[in-house]
Amino acid sequence: MNTSDPLRDLYADWSQVMADNPDMSMRLFRAIFDEWHQPTVEPENVTYKEEVIGGVPGIWCLPQGADTSRVLVYTHGGGFAVGSAASHRKLAAHVAKTLSVTSFVLDYRRAPEHPHPAQIEDGIAVIEALIDSGIQPENLTTIGDSAGGNLAVAIPLALIQQNKPVPGRVIAFSPWLDMENKGKTLETNLDTDALITPELLAGMIAGVLGDKTEPTNPLANPLYADFTGFPRLYINAGSVEALLDNAERLNERAKAAGVDVTLSIGENQQHVWPFLAGRSELVDQELQRIREWYGAS
Amino acid sequence: MNTSDPLRDLYADWSQVMADNPDMSMRLFRAIFDEWHQPTVEPENVTYKEEVIGGVPGIWCLPQGADTSRVLVYTHGGGFAVGSAASHRKLAAHVAKTLSVTSFVLDYRRAPEHPHPAQIEDGIAVIEALIDSGIQPENLTTIGDSAGGNLAVAIPLALIQQNKPVPGRVIAFSPWLDMENKGKTLETNLDTDALITPELLAGMIAGVLGDKTEPTNPLANPLYADFTGFPRLYINAGSVEALLDNAERLNERAKAAGVDVTLSIGENQQHVWPFLAGRSELVDQELQRIREWYGAS
Repeated sequence: MNTSDPLRDLYADWSQVMADNPDMSMRLFRAIFDEWHQPTVEPENVTYKEEVIGGVPGIWCLPQGADTSRVLVYTHGGGFAVGSAASHRKLAAHVAKTLSVTSFVLDYRRAPEHPHPAQIEDGIAVIEALIDSGIQPENLTTIGDSAGGNLAVAIPLALIQQNKPVPGRVIAFSPWLDMENKGKTLETNLDTDALITPELLAGMIAGVLGDKTEPTNPLANPLYADFTGFPRLYINAGSVEALLDNAERLNERAKAAGVDVTLSIGENQQHVWPFLAGRSELVDQELQRIREWYGAS
Repeated sequence: MNTSDPLRDLYADWSQVMADNPDMSMRLFRAIFDEWHQPTVEPENVTYKEEVIGGVPGIWCLPQGADTSRVLVYTHGGGFAVGSAASHRKLAAHVAKTLSVTSFVLDYRRAPEHPHPAQIEDGIAVIEALIDSGIQPENLTTIGDSAGGNLAVAIPLALIQQNKPVPGRVIAFSPWLDMENKGKTLETNLDTDALITPELLAGMIAGVLGDKTEPTNPLANPLYADFTGFPRLYINAGSVEALLDNAERLNERAKAAGVDVTLSIGENQQHVWPFLAGRSELVDQELQRIREWYGAS
């Protein structure tokens, strides 16, 4: 067992806070999940800039010397309900810096105030505005973690459905896709995952689906989607996380549709282990793998 | 009344959270106070770097083109118990950028785990390490807000007492100094201050003083200090805040000792109103006043 994992420590601490406060308000959930940035080291040589793009506020991560014609459209995790551009700024900046490109981290509308498909609509609005500003679709990458990994996949699926220009690449860190709240690692990794439980997910599912969306809707649950014509796809997950098989099932489903898909599993790693960027050799190596994947044609 | 004040809105929201959770743990206090950065816009053209200086971790704010021989040693607010380098990164970066210098934001040891004078010891350790690294003492400025404004004043007082080199300038935003928890604006501005109450302060005082420190100790409560030989001092506060008269009394006391002191009151502004940097014309003007004050000899 890895004895030093600040991300696991943070998740264990959140789990304790949730256990101590069983009726914790959404307001306080948002407060603790905004601490998600804490395990990530401030990346050096990156500047930031707030902007509203296509009506959606967010933070630009601008690594010095980056190719500004290439953009990672980053949708943060947090069950569609918590997390923010602020909580994911450093993570997005590490990825952008490794790839020598820029990243725009969206503060999309969150559930339950704004259920599905508000988040996808915001992602599409940003992508259309970036294309209107002169960015080539193939130079866009949708990227996200957890619920934001779902969005990074669902947004291109929606664009394909609407016959609109589609990003050239998709990256999903520990994507959370299964809105039916099932899957074998939800049971088999329950003891090793320091954060995720079926109960926690059930609350988030209720919030994002609301009254109108079925848990098998392919844009809410991409495990039911048709991946024909989907862009190159990079997926990772941690070997000990409860959502591991979401990543594995996405990989299988995309592969079956002929997608160029890569799956990377971090040994003994927790949910969204790239949050350890700047602090973990494993994550350094993973970011280098993504760099090679990104540059390949 | 100013109808748009995101800082006042945040304080009102925290006050509601505290009212809804009367037994809120220090753990959750720290979570909500780490949202303090939210009213501050990301400053553009600034990079960041984490470092441990003199044994104290913190974040460098490095505005592009800044004079790296001049350093703002920033001690964050939060009653000595909450707040962090992360919660104050953007604020410190705005000040550093306006002055074209760098800033190191300390994650000093917090109360109640570490009562007075741990925070002052950490500040001195950073200053000594910076001087050892070649920074001239006169090119150092101690700066902080609220409890961190207390530290920005107390650290030079301790250095004078110890016959050590002293920073050339001191800046205190809404300093919280009165550990006896009295003062007229605690009563007269109680209705207009969206955050501060004597009860909230009493809890923080108990935490930082612990069993061993008197509330009239001049290094815990600089309103009892001898300001002879103190550096040039810039103080501000908001006209509607409950701690306004801490700033006024500091100004009087320093002036009486012959210190070159400037006091700036922000009309209708809340506690630590520079948190509105990037979003408020009043704060832009205040930062320009500080720039002029800083450059004057």
